[in-house]
Amino acid sequence: MSRDFDIADLPSNWGRWGVDDELGTLNLITDSVRARAAEQVRTGRSVSLAMPVDPASMMGGPFAPPTPASPPVQQAMLYTGTPPMAMAEVLILAPHHAGLTHLDAVVHVPIDGHVYPGRPLAETVTPSGIRHGSTTAFADGVVTRGVLLDLSPEGRLPKAHPVTGADLAAAARRNGVQVEPGDALVVRGGWSTARNMGEQMPGMTVDALTWMRDHDVALYAGDIGDAHPPVDEQIAMPLHQVGLARMGMPLIDLAEVEELSSVCASQNRFTFLLSIAPLRLRGATGVPVNPLAIF
Amino acid sequence: MSRDFDIADLPSNWGRWGVDDELGTLNLITDSVRARAAEQVRTGRSVSLAMPVDPASMMGGPFAPPTPASPPVQQAMLYTGTPPMAMAEVLILAPHHAGLTHLDAVVHVPIDGHVYPGRPLAETVTPSGIRHGSTTAFADGVVTRGVLLDLSPEGRLPKAHPVTGADLAAAARRNGVQVEPGDALVVRGGWSTARNMGEQMPGMTVDALTWMRDHDVALYAGDIGDAHPPVDEQIAMPLHQVGLARMGMPLIDLAEVEELSSVCASQNRFTFLLSIAPLRLRGATGVPVNPLAIF
Amino acid sequence: MSRDFDIADLPSNWGRWGVDDELGTLNLITDSVRARAAEQVRTGRSVSLAMPVDPASMMGGPFAPPTPASPPVQQAMLYTGTPPMAMAEVLILAPHHAGLTHLDAVVHVPIDGHVYPGRPLAETVTPSGIRHGSTTAFADGVVTRGVLLDLSPEGRLPKAHPVTGADLAAAARRNGVQVEPGDALVVRGGWSTARNMGEQMPGMTVDALTWMRDHDVALYAGDIGDAHPPVDEQIAMPLHQVGLARMGMPLIDLAEVEELSSVCASQNRFTFLLSIAPLRLRGATGVPVNPLAIF
Amino acid sequence: MSRDFDIADLPSNWGRWGVDDELGTLNLITDSVRARAAEQVRTGRSVSLAMPVDPASMMGGPFAPPTPASPPVQQAMLYTGTPPMAMAEVLILAPHHAGLTHLDAVVHVPIDGHVYPGRPLAETVTPSGIRHGSTTAFADGVVTRGVLLDLSPEGRLPKAHPVTGADLAAAARRNGVQVEPGDALVVRGGWSTARNMGEQMPGMTVDALTWMRDHDVALYAGDIGDAHPPVDEQIAMPLHQVGLARMGMPLIDLAEVEELSSVCASQNRFTFLLSIAPLRLRGATGVPVNPLAIF
Repeated sequence: MSRDFDIADLPSNWGRWGVDDELGTLNLITDSVRARAAEQVRTGRSVSLAMPVDPASMMGGPFAPPTPASPPVQQAMLYTGTPPMAMAEVLILAPHHAGLTHLDAVVHVPIDGHVYPGRPLAETVTPSGIRHGSTTAFADGVVTRGVLLDLSPEGRLPKAHPVTGADLAAAARRNGVQVEPGDALVVRGGWSTARNMGEQMPGMTVDALTWMRDHDVALYAGDIGDAHPPVDEQIAMPLHQVGLARMGMPLIDLAEVEELSSVCASQNRFTFLLSIAPLRLRGATGVPVNPLAIF
Repeated sequence: MSRDFDIADLPSNWGRWGVDDELGTLNLITDSVRARAAEQVRTGRSVSLAMPVDPASMMGGPFAPPTPASPPVQQAMLYTGTPPMAMAEVLILAPHHAGLTHLDAVVHVPIDGHVYPGRPLAETVTPSGIRHGSTTAFADGVVTRGVLLDLSPEGRLPKAHPVTGADLAAAARRNGVQVEPGDALVVRGGWSTARNMGEQMPGMTVDALTWMRDHDVALYAGDIGDAHPPVDEQIAMPLHQVGLARMGMPLIDLAEVEELSSVCASQNRFTFLLSIAPLRLRGATGVPVNPLAIF
Repeated sequence: MSRDFDIADLPSNWGRWGVDDELGTLNLITDSVRARAAEQVRTGRSVSLAMPVDPASMMGGPFAPPTPASPPVQQAMLYTGTPPMAMAEVLILAPHHAGLTHLDAVVHVPIDGHVYPGRPLAETVTPSGIRHGSTTAFADGVVTRGVLLDLSPEGRLPKAHPVTGADLAAAARRNGVQVEPGDALVVRGGWSTARNMGEQMPGMTVDALTWMRDHDVALYAGDIGDAHPPVDEQIAMPLHQVGLARMGMPLIDLAEVEELSSVCASQNRFTFLLSIAPLRLRGATGVPVNPLAIF
Repeated sequence: MSRDFDIADLPSNWGRWGVDDELGTLNLITDSVRARAAEQVRTGRSVSLAMPVDPASMMGGPFAPPTPASPPVQQAMLYTGTPPMAMAEVLILAPHHAGLTHLDAVVHVPIDGHVYPGRPLAETVTPSGIRHGSTTAFADGVVTRGVLLDLSPEGRLPKAHPVTGADLAAAARRNGVQVEPGDALVVRGGWSTARNMGEQMPGMTVDALTWMRDHDVALYAGDIGDAHPPVDEQIAMPLHQVGLARMGMPLIDLAEVEELSSVCASQNRFTFLLSIAPLRLRGATGVPVNPLAIF
């Protein structure tokens, strides 16, 4: 892809926390940010931001019904003897699958052959494994204040709408919230149920990423993300190529936010404790997650 | 296994929440229990109760170093073109693996061919999938107050020690805590680092399970669990056969509690917000988790 | 399934080659049988009896097209560095899948809880592996004379037709062949292309199995096999429950025989060298194969 | 890797059978070659050239013994109900694994970013699959005359010995055989049992590959192959980079030839019918095989 601009002009945190940093914007989530986040809890209601997933049986054939095409999770239920002493399975997961709410590590996508904070991909991901920027950074979970920005409270954003910083600012004003350093941004575009319809979805722009960088957002989650085909004229996949690769900001792809937004609306508050606890898996490029919003 | 007692005498919640119940003791975690749990947070420090896991590369052969035997997680890093547009992988997991901190669903282990709350295993787990008592129950996560009971603050429990209700009560007194309905019990026996040494580990007894039932514990997590060989004369695997199958109490096997216990000791408090967010995966018998204790 | 007959009345080879035998009817393929089989070769033409299989990519998601539902083989193409030093993959196979021509080991199906030659299934297949009757028996391949019996040269057998010994004898007469001890029987019912149409297929009966036993057939391959729903009033799945479990006769499920039958017709001979070389895999219940008929 | 020679000087079949050819040297195996090969059979004895493989159980944990590190084949025995109606499994294979006798497709290894017959790798292997030079070429199996060249009848070749065309010619003279167009070359270096000892193995050179090209060898199989570290000063992995990528000659890696060589010696003949029947799998870079030599 040829481009008529310099990637150095894109918003970035390369070097901000040193050349060996793997946490990226998770550096912004300090103990005091977490303590303040817990103060959000009042009613104790818990809401999942993950799509439910039915694993596809690996048995198939004459013994079981056919499974869906390209499943995100497969399950092989194991024989443990006759009679069985316990039920257990093997699971096969495709973490970045479009049917799975998941958290991207910063190494997931390079920009011009480099990953956050400026390392050559070829040296960072070798046949022996990932040396930098993997899910290792998520060891202690991500617990912070979540802020819902509902970009289209009355329905859904228009097709192929390019979301800008002004859109995010307007939603914050509308909901009466201020995004503060270390917050997780949860974006609703109203497209949860339309994801597989083949319509041209709205998506983030470099301008929106610049806004996130200026507000020191620690993590992005949304029911919209990078649009295919792209909606930013400057660069394809700004959330991935700029957010991950330049800013070191982990992303939750394919969050489910409909229940969240109705709870926010009914309680008339748009902030909550957000608790994300990915498997403590080192050296992966992403993991499925079940982000919990607690009110 | 022949037994000289009636399973009906074992502590049980069969029928307590109806014959169709899948939540078991998670029914005890109400909104108010969650709200009170969040009040535990003061400093914002977050501690993981999961063992870290390095996935084993599936490449092997001449291209990469050999992987360990029987790995809990395997990773096949995918080719996405030349040059690669993104890095992604397929993961293969064995949820109940001894190298993986995981959450057991109640269907995982039957007692006398029946699973909680009294259903025949053969009808509950069919070639088409699991019909009852699976990880479906964990959709909204498990967020509650955690209570650490350190059974051996000075070191580790003796080999093959049968943990009783009196042991649990003594630890609660020592740490100045009261276990309340809906709490998650986090047990430290001091055996984290010895798990693979082939020594006879301590383990829970039916007496301890009765104590948990009497205190309405919602979930068990520990660095010890069911001992192999068994330490209870009455029944093998009481946590699994009684806790899961009779009481409907989900279990976290193989929790890592050393860092937790030092934070508790240094802060001189043994209660905290415990947030567990398993993949929102329906129909599995268990899932790996990264339980987070937030102080 | 209740039955009003004694399984001891079914054709059987239990005990014929001893209680520890794992070869079953492969015992009938001696060196001289193989040497005679090689004499069948005249033109050198080679025909595959396997259905071709396209592996389903495990990448899926935004990076590749969706895969078919319940695929028999999945492929994860591996990242081997940038630039790649070699292309390699991981394959996931379901050997008994209806989309895969495969060879069943005798342990695959029990009758009344017992597998050939009369061992209890529970002791034969344990959580630690298969102790008897697995693919271990196929180590040196299966090379013998193949005999095509075309049951319906003008088209296909009627729906739900119960194939009897008389049908097999009539086809042998029609094609001018005599089935001899150690031969592999290759049966054409003309249903290759209709396998997935949901129609009631024809299938083998105990009577046909008795004929095979009387002719000392060493191996069965066919484009028809056991019918679902069953066509034999006496027993469901006679090829599997009688052929495998009682007679110890390995089966090739889902052979592709259309090209074979046209070559036979055009050369006007219905015998050939049949060479089957399953992976030298020990301890499995079946393996995909590519049986080769050489004329 | 910088090189001081032109790859155009390496032995090659690029263009010999057209720019769209996928068969490579398998084009040399005609019907008459196959018919002549079958004439080799006299006694009917069948010998496998594959290493036996024990699949590693995917159960592990407390339910089964640990599996070896980096296994070539893994097996998940499936639960099919209580009682089980059949025994079946899922298999996971790494076709190019050093513990698996396997057949390389020509696309497996590129030279200077190109695969046989001169196509850019990046266009040939895409995220959607392999477009050229895969295992699709093996649909009808590989059946031809095999010729054993025993390079070291009295024992094993010296460490790090660079095998030349003269070595091959000397072995042919010693064994009284002439290699003819379409033959499969089966090479014994005497290193079968030493493969994992970490010793510097002998290996093929460009000179040996030139000899194979001059004799129109259709396929290579051996207990030695490309040495690591390399023994040819000109190029690493000549069998792969020259044999596969330049000559389009499929390779059997890791053949087991000890039993074969004793049968050849005892029968005092070094030619036989070689029957190779890989899974009829399209679009893979390699498949495990069980090559059968029939005498």
